[in-house]
Amino acid sequence: MTAAGYRAGGSITMRWAALCVVATVLALAGFANAKVVEHDFEVAYVDAAPDCYAKTVIGINGVYPGPTIRAVQGDILKITFHNYIATEGITMHWHGIRQVGSAWADGTAAVAQCPILYGESFTYEFIVDRPGTYFYHGHFGSQRAAGFYGALIVDLPAGKHEPYHYDGEHMIIVNDWWHRPIVTQEQGLEAIPFKFVGDPQSLLLEGRGRYNCSAVPTYTPAAISCNQTDERCAPHVMKVERGKTYRLRLASVASLSSLNFKIEGHKMKVVEADGHNVQPFWTDNLDLYSGETYSVLVSANMPGDNYHLGLNVRGREDHNVPTGLGILNYNNAPVRQPSTPAPKGPAWDDFEASKRQARKYKALKHNPDPTSHALDRHAKVTRTLILLTTQQKLKGHIKWAINNVTYAPLPTPVLAGLVYNISGSYDTAPPPDKMPADYNIYAPPPVTETNKGSGVYQFKTGDVVDVIIQNCGNLQNISENHPWHLHGHDFWILGYGDGKYDPKTSPKTFNLKNPPMRNNVPTFPFAWTAIRFKLDNPGAWPFHCHIEWHVHLGMGVVFAHGIEEVRAKGIPNSVLGCGLTKQLFKLR
Amino acid sequence: MTAAGYRAGGSITMRWAALCVVATVLALAGFANAKVVEHDFEVAYVDAAPDCYAKTVIGINGVYPGPTIRAVQGDILKITFHNYIATEGITMHWHGIRQVGSAWADGTAAVAQCPILYGESFTYEFIVDRPGTYFYHGHFGSQRAAGFYGALIVDLPAGKHEPYHYDGEHMIIVNDWWHRPIVTQEQGLEAIPFKFVGDPQSLLLEGRGRYNCSAVPTYTPAAISCNQTDERCAPHVMKVERGKTYRLRLASVASLSSLNFKIEGHKMKVVEADGHNVQPFWTDNLDLYSGETYSVLVSANMPGDNYHLGLNVRGREDHNVPTGLGILNYNNAPVRQPSTPAPKGPAWDDFEASKRQARKYKALKHNPDPTSHALDRHAKVTRTLILLTTQQKLKGHIKWAINNVTYAPLPTPVLAGLVYNISGSYDTAPPPDKMPADYNIYAPPPVTETNKGSGVYQFKTGDVVDVIIQNCGNLQNISENHPWHLHGHDFWILGYGDGKYDPKTSPKTFNLKNPPMRNNVPTFPFAWTAIRFKLDNPGAWPFHCHIEWHVHLGMGVVFAHGIEEVRAKGIPNSVLGCGLTKQLFKLR
Repeated sequence: MTAAGYRAGGSITMRWAALCVVATVLALAGFANAKVVEHDFEVAYVDAAPDCYAKTVIGINGVYPGPTIRAVQGDILKITFHNYIATEGITMHWHGIRQVGSAWADGTAAVAQCPILYGESFTYEFIVDRPGTYFYHGHFGSQRAAGFYGALIVDLPAGKHEPYHYDGEHMIIVNDWWHRPIVTQEQGLEAIPFKFVGDPQSLLLEGRGRYNCSAVPTYTPAAISCNQTDERCAPHVMKVERGKTYRLRLASVASLSSLNFKIEGHKMKVVEADGHNVQPFWTDNLDLYSGETYSVLVSANMPGDNYHLGLNVRGREDHNVPTGLGILNYNNAPVRQPSTPAPKGPAWDDFEASKRQARKYKALKHNPDPTSHALDRHAKVTRTLILLTTQQKLKGHIKWAINNVTYAPLPTPVLAGLVYNISGSYDTAPPPDKMPADYNIYAPPPVTETNKGSGVYQFKTGDVVDVIIQNCGNLQNISENHPWHLHGHDFWILGYGDGKYDPKTSPKTFNLKNPPMRNNVPTFPFAWTAIRFKLDNPGAWPFHCHIEWHVHLGMGVVFAHGIEEVRAKGIPNSVLGCGLTKQLFKLR
Repeated sequence: MTAAGYRAGGSITMRWAALCVVATVLALAGFANAKVVEHDFEVAYVDAAPDCYAKTVIGINGVYPGPTIRAVQGDILKITFHNYIATEGITMHWHGIRQVGSAWADGTAAVAQCPILYGESFTYEFIVDRPGTYFYHGHFGSQRAAGFYGALIVDLPAGKHEPYHYDGEHMIIVNDWWHRPIVTQEQGLEAIPFKFVGDPQSLLLEGRGRYNCSAVPTYTPAAISCNQTDERCAPHVMKVERGKTYRLRLASVASLSSLNFKIEGHKMKVVEADGHNVQPFWTDNLDLYSGETYSVLVSANMPGDNYHLGLNVRGREDHNVPTGLGILNYNNAPVRQPSTPAPKGPAWDDFEASKRQARKYKALKHNPDPTSHALDRHAKVTRTLILLTTQQKLKGHIKWAINNVTYAPLPTPVLAGLVYNISGSYDTAPPPDKMPADYNIYAPPPVTETNKGSGVYQFKTGDVVDVIIQNCGNLQNISENHPWHLHGHDFWILGYGDGKYDPKTSPKTFNLKNPPMRNNVPTFPFAWTAIRFKLDNPGAWPFHCHIEWHVHLGMGVVFAHGIEEVRAKGIPNSVLGCGLTKQLFKLR
């Protein structure tokens, strides 16, 4: 048997075709000296104990979390996945990378590609056209929550420098963590009656944390003994030398929780958010919503040897979730967790603190990113969507819906369906642009039953779109934070407003002076968030709540534009084969 | 959104093409009055507690075990699966059904078809050409062990009668059961060091049993409390009326264990094995190896109200595995588990008792099955395979190998690879026909490292083949029972012999007078088993140990013949789309 047997869709022809597309884009983007960064990732379950409780998680090349990928702006990434997980398909999303010219490589099952099946291999090829802090994570089912993620860092080319100084850097991916198997969590979400995953058992820094033995909920299949000496859950240690300044890169892959990060005794200077430099500001606690990335500068200027790194739940009452702890360690002193109290940020329900912090983000005037949108944020808006996000029911199953449609992915990737015009691959009726004008956001939805749909918001290339996300009372008339993530594009955050969005008065509050450009944005309880972006990257792109359990329940939409361009360039056969794409082919 | 969106490969054209193939075969088989039996099976995880321990298992239409399918000999089964399991593919094997003319519907991933992916639907269409007791089970990864199975009973046509009388009937599928998630079990099998699944926590009758709270191994994530009052694990009850005789159909889907079934105070008259009537014999305990089906007659002629049904492990020291208990209940008396001791069959290591029982099976002279092989069991043997089954290692991973090749499935179905002659879809070098003549079966394998392969034993239609399975010492020089199952064909069991097979003397012991025809056969420790069959059903057919964990470790081979016939009839596009079949197509 040869390795070739494992390379589905890996024929020379197809691989060259894909590479040519990338190379063309690369040339256009002006990265003449780009290099190709190649990795082979073998994906299989591994035995882990992230929070001391043994759990089988998805590993890459035998490790969890996955290896950090590092490249230089303009490089081509060429990452080949070999799927060794029996029965499961996989896909990999490159969170924050816009996939300019390579929409098929965005890694979203049901939108960008057919899953990579057991025994198959598949190569993602795309350009990292912008420096910054990113991450990658599985985008099929709840595989991200099963541990399928890692960091992706794009450096400035040699000779270029950030508009801030640092002596060294660290990367910490934060996460929330459950003991139950993923299949049990998903089954509960789909069950009647609904069984929510509940509070996480722990919070992880770089895949390490510790669950609370004495407070574990009774539904948890707890270990018989509560031995927490497993080396695999030893706290994450961030080593520093006194007197130096560090760039700490942070990313949240949380499945549910809004998080808040603190470093005992140290302030943080926020300088980057979602791959864009921002006007620096100081804080002693940092809100991180799922899907967000940050860089903060930390000066190692304190006398002691060890300080807590602390992670807490925001926005949901945290019950028994212990603070996720890591250690800031000075000058290679003996590592020990301090005996001081675990760091705590604002109270879980201090939403005003979160809003204040969210409003601190402003675009940096001299953002050095040469490929960032050189667009006019005052450009004429060609279309406005007002997306009301409601918790409703579908035949007894709890769902999340957008303008009364809960998104139900179909087995045919939307991109292939659009490019090849496959009947039945998506709903041709577009979903509604606007929420009902008279909707009372302070009450549970008046119509409990929602519609199921797989429609696509279709745009013209060049459209400038304002999207208002309107948060409201759920079935229990509670409103929670939902962090929204857009694929394929960044957007300006124009503003956050309490209450109900008013098309006449609310736009007057928009920040058009220095709105930050990002790909993630929170929506606060009983409040709205406004973003703007230009449709300038042809493809089919999900825009969804980044809470894993919410997207599983239908909390997302798909935007598409420029399909004729994608069609002209072609998409590789290797992304096809599932669902109605079987109809696309003719036997030779 | 229409239901059509979920029907991958379900175009009218393709479905008609498949139906035409089936209809043609049907006409040829002479079942003029056959009807079509249709079922829609929605596959999703369900919350179950088979042995009182809550576990998420694969259900069909919301239930576990899956619904019993009932049809009449000659009927066309048309079973549509809708896969609602996020990330997982599924396939369904119809165990004991030869799939005459419909090899693509055999339901083996990597051999017969590409998996049915999340959101897709797929219809199996085939004839049940022989009455008897069968079952169906997932044949991808370890999904059978996750609960993906049910019974399939084929009745005689109206007016025809079995050569034995009974007043009523019951069906019991037996199984062994573990608490750990499937992904954990599979990860352990693939790990270095190897972590075996260990003894099952319980034995199930019709998906119900009870684990031993006090003796649960420490590696089990046991429930915090040991509440065993869950209605879902109430013992299975077989209701009878005094004075009547019952046909009890039994099938074993065990993942590991050889089992022994007893009914307290009642003898059983064995009349059917693997869909073939046998010369009846009486026994007070019945060995069931994984993959086997039986019918036994039970006369309800005892005075009491309730009797134990008891299931025990054979062939492996059972440590803490409690007897699986059900209840035989008379005349609707109040149901209670008797306080008498749990029934026990022979000692676990009394292999001689098992061999004696295995040798009792003889073909029934007047087997009424009109479609059974009307072949001459004395036919000239055109090829003999002697398959040595060894436990070896592959780069440190423990594997099972056949003649020094551990079977490694590739992502392209072998049938498609053969029919379309796809280079790289299987090893073109055939695996070895014979074991080394000087192999010492009483020692661990002298060469620890095995080869990985995906070769195919290719035959000519009409070939008559003897296959000798030779059992020997494993890496610890222990030898265990392996139950072998053949797809697409039944075989005569010619004999069992202790020690090493001798090509000169052993054939003289073959039973050519009345060998039973079956599709499953045990191989005893340090012993050989001989079978014979005629290659008369074109396709690609696995022959493998039916222990789920062993086939996962490579303990199987693939037989193929008559590919030009399959090619002429065609296989539906809906079984393609994965692996190298992507190369088969041309974009229109």
